[in-house]
Amino acid sequence: MNEETILAKLPRKHRNLVLGIGDDCAIYRPKAGEDLVFTTDLFVEGVHFEQVSRPIPQRALARSLSDIAAMGATPRFCLVSLALPDWANEQWVADFFSGLLELANETNTALAGGDLSHANQLTCDVMVCGSVPRGTALRRDGARPGDAIYVSGPLGGWRHRPTVIPRLQEGRKLRGKATACIDISDGLALDLHRLCLASKVSAALDHVPLLEGATLEQALHDGEDYELLYTAAPRTRVAGIRIGTITSGTGLLTCAGQPIAPQGYDHFDRR
Amino acid sequence: MNEETILAKLPRKHRNLVLGIGDDCAIYRPKAGEDLVFTTDLFVEGVHFEQVSRPIPQRALARSLSDIAAMGATPRFCLVSLALPDWANEQWVADFFSGLLELANETNTALAGGDLSHANQLTCDVMVCGSVPRGTALRRDGARPGDAIYVSGPLGGWRHRPTVIPRLQEGRKLRGKATACIDISDGLALDLHRLCLASKVSAALDHVPLLEGATLEQALHDGEDYELLYTAAPRTRVAGIRIGTITSGTGLLTCAGQPIAPQGYDHFDRR
Repeated sequence: MNEETILAKLPRKHRNLVLGIGDDCAIYRPKAGEDLVFTTDLFVEGVHFEQVSRPIPQRALARSLSDIAAMGATPRFCLVSLALPDWANEQWVADFFSGLLELANETNTALAGGDLSHANQLTCDVMVCGSVPRGTALRRDGARPGDAIYVSGPLGGWRHRPTVIPRLQEGRKLRGKATACIDISDGLALDLHRLCLASKVSAALDHVPLLEGATLEQALHDGEDYELLYTAAPRTRVAGIRIGTITSGTGLLTCAGQPIAPQGYDHFDRR
Repeated sequence: MNEETILAKLPRKHRNLVLGIGDDCAIYRPKAGEDLVFTTDLFVEGVHFEQVSRPIPQRALARSLSDIAAMGATPRFCLVSLALPDWANEQWVADFFSGLLELANETNTALAGGDLSHANQLTCDVMVCGSVPRGTALRRDGARPGDAIYVSGPLGGWRHRPTVIPRLQEGRKLRGKATACIDISDGLALDLHRLCLASKVSAALDHVPLLEGATLEQALHDGEDYELLYTAAPRTRVAGIRIGTITSGTGLLTCAGQPIAPQGYDHFDRR
């Protein structure tokens, strides 16, 4: 098994991708009037997943696709870096790419390149590039007092969510409507706090929709929901579940009038 | 120390980078008539470097910038993912980004985003995006029998090379002149073999310029030279040191008439 033989098996062509795997770089030809958005997410064994846990490649790609959805963008291609421990044999690597390509194909995301190496812990870094019509990307910093706060679906964290479906269609439909948008990767409380800090506002929640079996605590603070959290002016009609209202001040969160702590699944703080 | 406080200290603005660190994605606005090139390189403690070895962030970024140079491209921005072990304290992380930004600023590469996590081994993945005028990227697959083979400087591997300077200017000057180009990251023999396979040609070397103190073996098979290796039609004038001639056949390499093995520093095979 070496890098060339693994990479040679992967599909190479995609619209706008002039050159995929097999050179020093992939080449992408932007279309007139498009902005490109970029995100990258690390996925480390023992931190983000256990060896025998749910599908690793889909979750690794879904994390980045969720960021693309939160910008209102359409994914175009990804680069996948994989550091493999000894237990990850040739079959494991083939299964990894096969699982990754399943979600990549479903979402029309080309696998354009990457890097392979080895390590003691499996480590995966997935970069995704997406595109939006110029100037329409959804940012975190546009929420204003009086805006309504929405989520794209019920929350509860990874324990209650067997599969992750990045909200790409939902994100695209918010372009020109939402004043701010972020994906919920580390819990509603922490990600709402991030949105509030970026927009220099506060938030009052009055209703948090829960996944079956989930508690309010899990919805507020557990990771890997990957629903979208967004705001819109009071008179703007948007799809989703309304959960509260943006208020003045900076970064103060309440739920049913009680203060909530901006804590969640911070991969970095848990070291 | 958390992700927000680390990232808040980093510079944010750059030409064409509409939005840098601090949202779900970075936003890049392509210029009319540019192709974008993308590369990503893993850098793993104990595999690519030892903890106390030469500057880690510069080497990690230089690897990717060398790929950008090999496409004849100009770097625009990078995303840096960093999984940190316990020994990497706050000061180490500050020094890492300070070292990385030194080379990033020198080469006008914006730090547009990334991800931070923890791991047992320090692992760093650097994605760089560069740009070239549409259709001018230097690929590996255009070498033809009779073309002259060049390198951008003397070789010998990382033991003989205190600092790495990605050959960005040299690469740009080859646009429209070189028929194929690759950077020498894993030794002349292995990277020449890759170029020959992509172009479906063979290569006869007659002269390999050596760094002071280096042997021919080291120049052929050691990693991290990061010089450019390129080919040009016999009558095309290009800068560089001529080292041989492209011949027919596929992937056969000789040096002074003797066959050489396409072996080098393959991070993946050494597991």
